[in-house]
Amino acid sequence: MSLIVQKFGGSSVANAERVFNVAGIVTDTYKKGNDVVVVVSAQGDTTDDFIEKANEINTEPSKREMDVLLSAGEQISMSLLAMAIEKLGYPVVSLTGWQAGFHTSSAYGGARIKRVIPDRIRKELDKKNIVIVAGFQGINRYQDITTLGRGGSDTSAVAIASVMHADLCQIYTDVEGVYTADPRKVEGARKLSEISYDEMLELATLGAQVLNNRSVEMAKKYNIELEVLSSLTKKPGTIVKEAAKMEKMLISGVAKDTNVARISIVGVPDRPGLAFKIFSKLAAKDVNVDIILQSIGRDGTKDISFTVTKDKAKEAVETLNEYVEVVGAARVVHEDNVAKVSIVGAGMESHPGIAADMFEALYDAQINIQMISTSEIKISVLINACDADAAVSAIHDKFFSTDNV
Amino acid sequence: MSLIVQKFGGSSVANAERVFNVAGIVTDTYKKGNDVVVVVSAQGDTTDDFIEKANEINTEPSKREMDVLLSAGEQISMSLLAMAIEKLGYPVVSLTGWQAGFHTSSAYGGARIKRVIPDRIRKELDKKNIVIVAGFQGINRYQDITTLGRGGSDTSAVAIASVMHADLCQIYTDVEGVYTADPRKVEGARKLSEISYDEMLELATLGAQVLNNRSVEMAKKYNIELEVLSSLTKKPGTIVKEAAKMEKMLISGVAKDTNVARISIVGVPDRPGLAFKIFSKLAAKDVNVDIILQSIGRDGTKDISFTVTKDKAKEAVETLNEYVEVVGAARVVHEDNVAKVSIVGAGMESHPGIAADMFEALYDAQINIQMISTSEIKISVLINACDADAAVSAIHDKFFSTDNV
Repeated sequence: MSLIVQKFGGSSVANAERVFNVAGIVTDTYKKGNDVVVVVSAQGDTTDDFIEKANEINTEPSKREMDVLLSAGEQISMSLLAMAIEKLGYPVVSLTGWQAGFHTSSAYGGARIKRVIPDRIRKELDKKNIVIVAGFQGINRYQDITTLGRGGSDTSAVAIASVMHADLCQIYTDVEGVYTADPRKVEGARKLSEISYDEMLELATLGAQVLNNRSVEMAKKYNIELEVLSSLTKKPGTIVKEAAKMEKMLISGVAKDTNVARISIVGVPDRPGLAFKIFSKLAAKDVNVDIILQSIGRDGTKDISFTVTKDKAKEAVETLNEYVEVVGAARVVHEDNVAKVSIVGAGMESHPGIAADMFEALYDAQINIQMISTSEIKISVLINACDADAAVSAIHDKFFSTDNV
Repeated sequence: MSLIVQKFGGSSVANAERVFNVAGIVTDTYKKGNDVVVVVSAQGDTTDDFIEKANEINTEPSKREMDVLLSAGEQISMSLLAMAIEKLGYPVVSLTGWQAGFHTSSAYGGARIKRVIPDRIRKELDKKNIVIVAGFQGINRYQDITTLGRGGSDTSAVAIASVMHADLCQIYTDVEGVYTADPRKVEGARKLSEISYDEMLELATLGAQVLNNRSVEMAKKYNIELEVLSSLTKKPGTIVKEAAKMEKMLISGVAKDTNVARISIVGVPDRPGLAFKIFSKLAAKDVNVDIILQSIGRDGTKDISFTVTKDKAKEAVETLNEYVEVVGAARVVHEDNVAKVSIVGAGMESHPGIAADMFEALYDAQINIQMISTSEIKISVLINACDADAAVSAIHDKFFSTDNV
């Protein structure tokens, strides 16, 4: 007998038919003699509907009250799922975030799970109940309802799996697993049977929005095996686990991220400490910088370029404009029309030719590289936004075309 | 400075415009220096929508899960009202049933409030917050969400007013107060400026659905002054208070109840104890009997007639049919097409002519009386359902026509 945590996203429970589909998956798992804890998100568009309802009244409601409102969404979906499981004839109980013991930080709208006290969940499992838990929510030290922010239900599921030492944590979603590239865009994209936590993290960061990043970090920390799979097709998905336990693939995926802007400060005097000061200013404004490139300029000056997410670009430019005179730089340049394309693979550390292969693929496709960034398991390039899809295809072909397998 | 509890029903917060109307009433009260606790129901049709959503999945869901679902309704309305009050620039916090300290019996779907521990409410009032509380809900000893059943928000409001010794508990609704008869049906129906708890209880029982009965009982027990008034017109409503504190009116109202059926057991042998046994059988099936009439029959038998609510009629008939042979009675007769019309008035105790006046009014209108029941402050008659409206008008005219005032 195993303890299995199953998480279902909003689209998996969007209507009565889908709720029954999920009830079927859950009860099938339970029938096999497993203890089952189900984490569920709000139905389909509930969250967006609630936000709209709130905005009719107040476009800037307090985050506390927004959390009260949004958390009603899972309360609805979890009770409906419980009713469907009752209808199928199985014992079930649904629990809100506070009932399930989710204690979070105080930050309304984006709280972090501080601890899960699963006494109630355990008690219900002991009674042989299927336990449904509201994802995405908890309570803070003031006994106020908090939400974990978008994608938080994944984290809820992994947190339960961690604290209860679950044997498996299944994340049901609307895709069949993790792919070598976006299957809607890249012909020949293949589903991976397994991937390491680190690779998954890099892919998630790079815009392959299959799993919430915090959930993967937590799974890695507590060594919880995740399975990403579809609630609609009944096929095995992708297992996310420790790299040591798996056969390393050279490259596990190609991802594209268009939510990126390039910012350059041109003509920065070549004095020590200026770069540090520039990036401190940005950090103080909560602007996360990704790829950084420093070029040797002319006349004792240099150019510093970096990328940020698009929504932070304006703030970054404003911050630097205030600073450009102070440091004696020439000007700040801002370019939105860029994309980041990356390959991720735990195997690339030991294969130095990977970067060259990637650049060759881009050269063959006549795509110009603006910036390059590498880590142990990732190589990213910044290119024109309009080249992004072609770049992904070219790189994917290079590494995954049948000739190379 | 006073502590005022204000309760708003579902129609009062049905949409954004109405939510702002309520926010206006609440903040006007707060501005005058009062502490304000607001109890709010689910918006408009939310409860019915939820029931429909549930029934799509399971027509017989567990009451526990139904309560989880329904209680989301007030969570939505209370957060939206809080956002509207924030928008108007006032400090506010919304609390669910468990946050507000509502502890109830375990009976899902129809729980009774066992105690209210208002520590959190008090703390928020001390911080000068307007406090919004979800009506209709609480938690039981298992830390599960319960609901109080329909109309339970009134009870929530009175319970808070009682435990916190509020100076006034205002029940905002879609009528302007308590009337001498249904103003939509009876020309000349007048709003009462005050009414006693007992009269209100009799009127509520008789189908004048202005206030939930349990809430009036509780207000009476803890001597909380209630005001029933409209959230849409800004007129004074009806004060419900101790009889001793008010000028007694002879008659405070005329009410009609068509949710009633008459059942007769014909030819019951005239032996002691049979009536007792018959009504014990009904009590065991949870059938509440209202007016009882025992006639002297012929040949040493008698007929026993009584009224029940329509939904219990079938069960009562079945119960008695099983029993009719055992007691040696002839048969059970069932009549649905009846109505109960009643007058209520704390003053009637000391005025023996009231009953005669009522019967005279019915006689003048050529309406036949089937059964009569009286209490200290109420006289009810059972008549044909088709005569009910005419009976109410005739009786109302008799007691309230301008000639008699």
